[in-house]
Amino acid sequence: MVKRILETCFAPGLYRPEEHVNSIVVIIDILRASSAICTAFANGAVSILPVADAAEAKEYKSKGCLVAAERDGFVLDFADFGNSPFNFTKDKVDGKTIVYSTTNGTSIINQASSAHLIAIGSFLNLTALTEWIIRMERDVLLFCAGWKNRFNLEDTVCAGAMATRLMETGHFTTICDSTHAAMDLWSKARYDLPAYINKAAQRNRLRDKNLDDCIPFCLTIDYTDKIPVMKNGFLIENVL
Amino acid sequence: MVKRILETCFAPGLYRPEEHVNSIVVIIDILRASSAICTAFANGAVSILPVADAAEAKEYKSKGCLVAAERDGFVLDFADFGNSPFNFTKDKVDGKTIVYSTTNGTSIINQASSAHLIAIGSFLNLTALTEWIIRMERDVLLFCAGWKNRFNLEDTVCAGAMATRLMETGHFTTICDSTHAAMDLWSKARYDLPAYINKAAQRNRLRDKNLDDCIPFCLTIDYTDKIPVMKNGFLIENVL
Repeated sequence: MVKRILETCFAPGLYRPEEHVNSIVVIIDILRASSAICTAFANGAVSILPVADAAEAKEYKSKGCLVAAERDGFVLDFADFGNSPFNFTKDKVDGKTIVYSTTNGTSIINQASSAHLIAIGSFLNLTALTEWIIRMERDVLLFCAGWKNRFNLEDTVCAGAMATRLMETGHFTTICDSTHAAMDLWSKARYDLPAYINKAAQRNRLRDKNLDDCIPFCLTIDYTDKIPVMKNGFLIENVL
Repeated sequence: MVKRILETCFAPGLYRPEEHVNSIVVIIDILRASSAICTAFANGAVSILPVADAAEAKEYKSKGCLVAAERDGFVLDFADFGNSPFNFTKDKVDGKTIVYSTTNGTSIINQASSAHLIAIGSFLNLTALTEWIIRMERDVLLFCAGWKNRFNLEDTVCAGAMATRLMETGHFTTICDSTHAAMDLWSKARYDLPAYINKAAQRNRLRDKNLDDCIPFCLTIDYTDKIPVMKNGFLIENVL
């Protein structure tokens, strides 16, 4: 059996689009974009249109769309809400399409647009996502969003959790040092994830802005079995 | 007491020169450039002129200089030797200036040229380097060379070893996730470093080319007390 290749990328400045045109690229931005997107689908959202530009998000708002938009953790004034997963409640998003612009997450989705398939990963959909990946016959890149082109701990340990599950199947191989590092960091973090994430810079940034209430939720494993994937410019729920 | 800031950068694509103009930047490329440079000074080299370009190295050779030059682990045909630390023997380098061009190391030295001071770090000079850093009143960036703009394990655990020693002094603070990750990986690697480095991609690349004989040496802690620093375009031995 030819094993599939598993790799991990720690930040946008390290991404090589030409190497992943046949791969599934999993976008991981757990504080908070990818957690919020998974929550939106868990609460019935039909689709999400990621836009990188705030002006573009504003234009969609003027056309009557439901818009989630933030920069550096703060809701943009024209938007309906920001990217705390707690905003994506059933009463707001059920049956809806959401236009979504965040600091990191949406620009990274654009950066990975040449990949075979883009999926959104978080602790919230860990088991569903990894089991779906195992069934697909593709190489996989775990693409950590990081923060402003910096490595971050929370996305890395989540990538490590995914990589550990994928490697355990025996279907994957890796010669990627980032994947080994992510798995080793997950092995340190896994028994008390909230304590581990306490030292993450983003955890402190969010606390400084009183935006850290959602962190325990974002570290919840298997809140949903939804797998958001990109199709024709929209994130939709994956249906096999 | 105002604490000094300690940060770590995992690859050239994540480096921010504007943030480190007042800092000591430690270049870490342990397999093999920074280990070879430390060895050269341990064996009596007077200075090293890092050049990023192979053509430039060749020109220096035509002028009669001693030239160390390699690409992807192989010695360039015009060079006197490549960058195995075993090449920098006392009989070859004692009292000499060496022109030095490598795949990663020299281009990263150029990238960091706006820093207050550039030093070369490896396991070989771990204690001397960290004790010198502690005496300097500067913020510090540990700059891992990585490999072709990828994260690598060997430079990261070396950065983790340095960061652990620096943080233990109480003189430093960090909100840098890369530094936390490096220290955590060092905490996993430190009790059997050769076994840990066995999974590093570069360890396997060197083995495939029969260039791995120097790896145990490169993982030797405190072989020398020399601290190579950049002054006027040359690496020289630091004298306080």
